[in-house]
Amino acid sequence: MTGVTPLEVLRSVLIAPSVREDFIRKLPGRGADVVFLDCEDAVPANAKEQGRLLARRWVPQLVAQGETVVVRVNAVTGPWFDADIREGVAPEAAAVVVPKIETVEQLDHVATTLDRAGLDNVGVLVGIETALGVIDARILLSHPRVSAAYFGAEDLIADLGGVRTESNHEVANARSSVALSARVAEVPIVDQVVTDFRNEARFTREARQARNMGYAGKLCIHPGQVEPANAAFTPGPEEVDRARRLLTAYAEAQDRGLAAIDFEGQMVDEPLAVQARRLLERVRGVAHP
Amino acid sequence: MTGVTPLEVLRSVLIAPSVREDFIRKLPGRGADVVFLDCEDAVPANAKEQGRLLARRWVPQLVAQGETVVVRVNAVTGPWFDADIREGVAPEAAAVVVPKIETVEQLDHVATTLDRAGLDNVGVLVGIETALGVIDARILLSHPRVSAAYFGAEDLIADLGGVRTESNHEVANARSSVALSARVAEVPIVDQVVTDFRNEARFTREARQARNMGYAGKLCIHPGQVEPANAAFTPGPEEVDRARRLLTAYAEAQDRGLAAIDFEGQMVDEPLAVQARRLLERVRGVAHP
Amino acid sequence: MTGVTPLEVLRSVLIAPSVREDFIRKLPGRGADVVFLDCEDAVPANAKEQGRLLARRWVPQLVAQGETVVVRVNAVTGPWFDADIREGVAPEAAAVVVPKIETVEQLDHVATTLDRAGLDNVGVLVGIETALGVIDARILLSHPRVSAAYFGAEDLIADLGGVRTESNHEVANARSSVALSARVAEVPIVDQVVTDFRNEARFTREARQARNMGYAGKLCIHPGQVEPANAAFTPGPEEVDRARRLLTAYAEAQDRGLAAIDFEGQMVDEPLAVQARRLLERVRGVAHP
Repeated sequence: MTGVTPLEVLRSVLIAPSVREDFIRKLPGRGADVVFLDCEDAVPANAKEQGRLLARRWVPQLVAQGETVVVRVNAVTGPWFDADIREGVAPEAAAVVVPKIETVEQLDHVATTLDRAGLDNVGVLVGIETALGVIDARILLSHPRVSAAYFGAEDLIADLGGVRTESNHEVANARSSVALSARVAEVPIVDQVVTDFRNEARFTREARQARNMGYAGKLCIHPGQVEPANAAFTPGPEEVDRARRLLTAYAEAQDRGLAAIDFEGQMVDEPLAVQARRLLERVRGVAHP
Repeated sequence: MTGVTPLEVLRSVLIAPSVREDFIRKLPGRGADVVFLDCEDAVPANAKEQGRLLARRWVPQLVAQGETVVVRVNAVTGPWFDADIREGVAPEAAAVVVPKIETVEQLDHVATTLDRAGLDNVGVLVGIETALGVIDARILLSHPRVSAAYFGAEDLIADLGGVRTESNHEVANARSSVALSARVAEVPIVDQVVTDFRNEARFTREARQARNMGYAGKLCIHPGQVEPANAAFTPGPEEVDRARRLLTAYAEAQDRGLAAIDFEGQMVDEPLAVQARRLLERVRGVAHP
Repeated sequence: MTGVTPLEVLRSVLIAPSVREDFIRKLPGRGADVVFLDCEDAVPANAKEQGRLLARRWVPQLVAQGETVVVRVNAVTGPWFDADIREGVAPEAAAVVVPKIETVEQLDHVATTLDRAGLDNVGVLVGIETALGVIDARILLSHPRVSAAYFGAEDLIADLGGVRTESNHEVANARSSVALSARVAEVPIVDQVVTDFRNEARFTREARQARNMGYAGKLCIHPGQVEPANAAFTPGPEEVDRARRLLTAYAEAQDRGLAAIDFEGQMVDEPLAVQARRLLERVRGVAHP
């Protein structure tokens, strides 16, 4: 990543269709780390022009209200992308979200189009959500213009001709392998949506799994998902206490020339100390975004 | 894929040893989408010649009885492959099945050997069933001569020196990653066998998982597995009804300029509409193969 | 692999910090296939020099007592590696263990450093335990100087910024994909540690899963884990009996010109016979290492 407008805290990324001003008006103050105006999947072909103009108009207002805002444009391969960038993305946007990225050439085109539109300070958050995107995620996410990514399970299964289930069995391998690719590319990545938005148990379970795998947060398709997302991606007080106790015991052992200790029934050495340090960094990152 | 004799419907691929005429005689009318005469694993070294001659003789008869027939020859790296192609494959076969494919060179050899034998209209269905085959599946399945593939869990675990279990934990990653590779290569892929052929619950569970992951069907090693395979890979009436209702609601929303709706408690937008459309295509594909 | 000092039996690889002479003294006779003196994660920065000198001194003594011994040095990218090799590795060591391998250049440096130190007969056991290591495992493990490998889940999750759980969900894909890479590279691979060392049920469950996936053994961070490791990676008497019965029935069928049989309710053909043969080889390998 280039570090152009990095999106540092991404626990909850709340999506609203750009054509739903009634929804957009209510986005501020919901507690989402990022607000995501969608001109792609949530806007039908007959409203694409209206969608991009509304996104263009709303971004500065939301930013003025203290929100971090990103705008999803339509896919590079379709007929709307160029106009979306030119007319739909305000320079106040933290990032353009580009869905269904599959090739380096597409990313080069994104970079050029943004430059021409004078949006070279706007980040690029790409969607990995096709079989090709998943397989080539490492090279795609390593593109210098990419600042962050999300994993899109619904589009992936549509691409595969499969069926989505609550078990996530059908996307487990892709979801995990994309997290590895994002780490190698050094970009943060946001986890899949949960479409049955009243199923909070599922959302929380997925969010915890995602954090365990190294995801930075979760796409939210309903305001009710923001709080569970923030909670799942913020270490709880017991976790924080344990991490602090662990690092204290580890430091004391190191003073005595040791680095592998029995800590509360667990063998702790350097990798577990690193895990504890990163947990505490995550708490600090959230406290001071 | 070249589209040479594509195998369009592959829900149930029923295997019989080419040396078991008693079995082969009973194959027609069992409802299998494809009948698979095996000259490889199911035929011992001392019967390879007999096996290929029987396969050669039976294919035209089975085709005359309305079956789609494929013939599995022995591996390219072994001593029987060339004669299997020359003497074992009738031109009426929909495809030659080539097991344990691991390199592009092997596929080039398959293509050349088929051309020399005048079998350039016969498809090639390859087995991905070794560690190397799994890792290189994307490039292997993208070979222009490949029309379809299967994933072989038993051979893979033999190759790894592991142990097969009903949990499928030991093959989960490979099975899923091969499905992604097949999608990228645009070839349909058929899922692993279930060797404990009286365990219909296992078969049905695996078949559903496979469909969820994007597999087109399942290898069957017993006629009793054909009906469960066809059932699992054919969307049921409730699924079809739901898909139709969903697309109707989605179309109505689009007329009003919207593309993200609350449909029966689920947020539905374009990727879910695509999933529904593909489900209905699958139903049509089965009805008019 | 070059076959330089191959590590043939790796069911239990028992780790002790090189600075804990009290532990090291008690290592012989514990039944571990390999004893692993750690100068890396288990030794703090202020004791690195002492750690390598103790490792250097203890290896010949442990070897004289009949143990197969490996020494883990610090990472190639850090300040201690070169001195660790020069001063910490006795020529009696079966292998140097090099953690966190990520690039071919690092492996070339390992090879050169070992050659210069006159340790060209010592094997190299590498740690795959970062996102980059996992993704590039196939090319890394194919380096001619690599004799064996281990998969490090704790370091991988530290690298990903994730959270380790008993479910292993967060490492499932990596753990399995590394096993495939090791097979393609033809090197044996040892599975992750279990840090909560009193949880024998977890250890045994993980060890069985690992064997199913093709792993050769398990890293042990406590002497109490050695016996469960040896047990899990040694086929039990019932497994051995079944494999023998299966191969007998298969051989009899082959004499009759058949190679696909109903064996105790399971369809058995060549891949299952290979699995049975490899199971018996594993028993023999353990009996005569």
